[in-house]
Amino acid sequence: MKKFVNDPREFVPEMLEGIALANPDTLAYDPRYNLIRRADAPRADKVSIIQGSGSGHEPAHVMVVGKGMLDGACPGDVFAAPPTDYVYESGKILASEKGVLLLVNNYTGDRMAFDMAKEMLEAEGLEVATLFINDDVAVKDSLYTVGRRGVAGNFFVIKACGAKAEEGADLAEVVRVGEKVNSVARTMGIALTGCTPPAKGEPIFTLADDEMEVGVGIHGEPGRRREKIKSADAIVDELLDAIVPDLPYEAGDEVALMVNGLGGTPISELYLLYGLAHKKLAAKGIKVWRSYVGEYCTSLEMAGASITLVKVDNEIKGLLEAPAEIAIRTF
Amino acid sequence: MKKFVNDPREFVPEMLEGIALANPDTLAYDPRYNLIRRADAPRADKVSIIQGSGSGHEPAHVMVVGKGMLDGACPGDVFAAPPTDYVYESGKILASEKGVLLLVNNYTGDRMAFDMAKEMLEAEGLEVATLFINDDVAVKDSLYTVGRRGVAGNFFVIKACGAKAEEGADLAEVVRVGEKVNSVARTMGIALTGCTPPAKGEPIFTLADDEMEVGVGIHGEPGRRREKIKSADAIVDELLDAIVPDLPYEAGDEVALMVNGLGGTPISELYLLYGLAHKKLAAKGIKVWRSYVGEYCTSLEMAGASITLVKVDNEIKGLLEAPAEIAIRTF
Repeated sequence: MKKFVNDPREFVPEMLEGIALANPDTLAYDPRYNLIRRADAPRADKVSIIQGSGSGHEPAHVMVVGKGMLDGACPGDVFAAPPTDYVYESGKILASEKGVLLLVNNYTGDRMAFDMAKEMLEAEGLEVATLFINDDVAVKDSLYTVGRRGVAGNFFVIKACGAKAEEGADLAEVVRVGEKVNSVARTMGIALTGCTPPAKGEPIFTLADDEMEVGVGIHGEPGRRREKIKSADAIVDELLDAIVPDLPYEAGDEVALMVNGLGGTPISELYLLYGLAHKKLAAKGIKVWRSYVGEYCTSLEMAGASITLVKVDNEIKGLLEAPAEIAIRTF
Repeated sequence: MKKFVNDPREFVPEMLEGIALANPDTLAYDPRYNLIRRADAPRADKVSIIQGSGSGHEPAHVMVVGKGMLDGACPGDVFAAPPTDYVYESGKILASEKGVLLLVNNYTGDRMAFDMAKEMLEAEGLEVATLFINDDVAVKDSLYTVGRRGVAGNFFVIKACGAKAEEGADLAEVVRVGEKVNSVARTMGIALTGCTPPAKGEPIFTLADDEMEVGVGIHGEPGRRREKIKSADAIVDELLDAIVPDLPYEAGDEVALMVNGLGGTPISELYLLYGLAHKKLAAKGIKVWRSYVGEYCTSLEMAGASITLVKVDNEIKGLLEAPAEIAIRTF
């Protein structure tokens, strides 16, 4: 197993400890619940936003905790939903009079944990809402979902909800903007390789040297089909042909365009894909308002990428442009 | 070849076009010289800073062009020094009355191109300085260098020179702070896999499933030795045992600590390494003043990581804390 790891069972806690040590002034770490939280949360004047999901998708979500983004993230083990008590205890720690929003990527295991935690928190008198993110157009139902999966589009929902919460909006209003962004976000991805969860020690799936998985999930679950590798041009066409008609995005629309790396793909290739997608959208009359290129929601070291479009109006633009400070500092 | 690529010969231009399309307001692209430059450069009141090196190390250097960082980057093809005329023409385009600083990672090919371009630019009456970065402690001379190689420590030199130039300092002063930072920066890396330049189509070297290359260069050139893979703990020990005594970094010192990914290693593993390094330094009495975790100087999709230490004083802290705006926007 070609990984930087000690005891594979300690992979997640050791990563979380590293995040906390790298951000001593802004983040706090509670190892009991895998909780990374803003050091200054909760605040009585602001809805608290918590996301969980499995580990292995970093920077989602433990590395997008910060001002204008998440108040806390309580991941499960690699590719495993957080236990209900992680969510429940994190909700209690981050409880605010303005309410608690639980953001959940749409997977059956995550829904169960968050729905139950919501009930438990409400029983204690807290105002709690859940918001399910389901931006992946690849498949109708998947190995782990009823309905569409939540993938890299979750970033935009976090950003919008985080900005709205920072304004002091009430819980219903924060939920409203999150649902609005989710409703206009669409994603599809392609994998060139599998990946290896540390505790498993072997790849969750393998692709031949000339194969790719179209519409792959972020846990390696199957997408639409397995194909021979194509040129970057043909790959971008294939992704946009699935994404664009789905909303649909139409001539005259303005969009945020994200090219997200799945973990093992270098940023040079992501910018190459970005340039192709930008030009192909322009040729359809769809204007890129703002670009997002990098790693947002990954699958460990999987080589691959996804494209996300978000149709923007003035309200969404304002939310995406609002200041935010995530834990990861690049310079 | 598992890459997002069209014609491999167009890999670098297509990447550069993607960078330009993603940053229409802040960057300009001159395809004649692979030049990505600040749209507002040159400025008469500021030293212009240019770096070249080969492509394949992104975000170095085309993605660290921006306010408080580089004014331009003119890379060669993948792992190839830029031709002299790229540097010369970029220097003319970015010529400032305050002078031009050419930052160069110490490789023989890069030195030749930049030294010659410097002479040509000086012949036109420009004030030009070169600064060679050589932070890699792994080997005394390498396949491509006389003396030590320049690797991820170049980020700190760019940041310091960029901040100083933004203050309006003269060329000698910008060079002084760059040399100061270079003199207290030390790096060593480990590779778990090789990588494949698009035009080559096959890996530049291969490692067995249980092997790693200790002290690897960023073009896959050999390091100190090939070993069986060890635990993350043992790897961090091995890197720090090479880096710490080299300056040396001593109890009571404050340092910037960078854990840099070589391209194919997920950020979760980098934070795991960061946490271990942070604690091991603390045990030696060395205090981490500021953390840098992510990809700064890569080798395409190589799995691996490097650790950089920079001993900081108040002057260096001020330069590293100065505001900067790079082209890459993560949110």
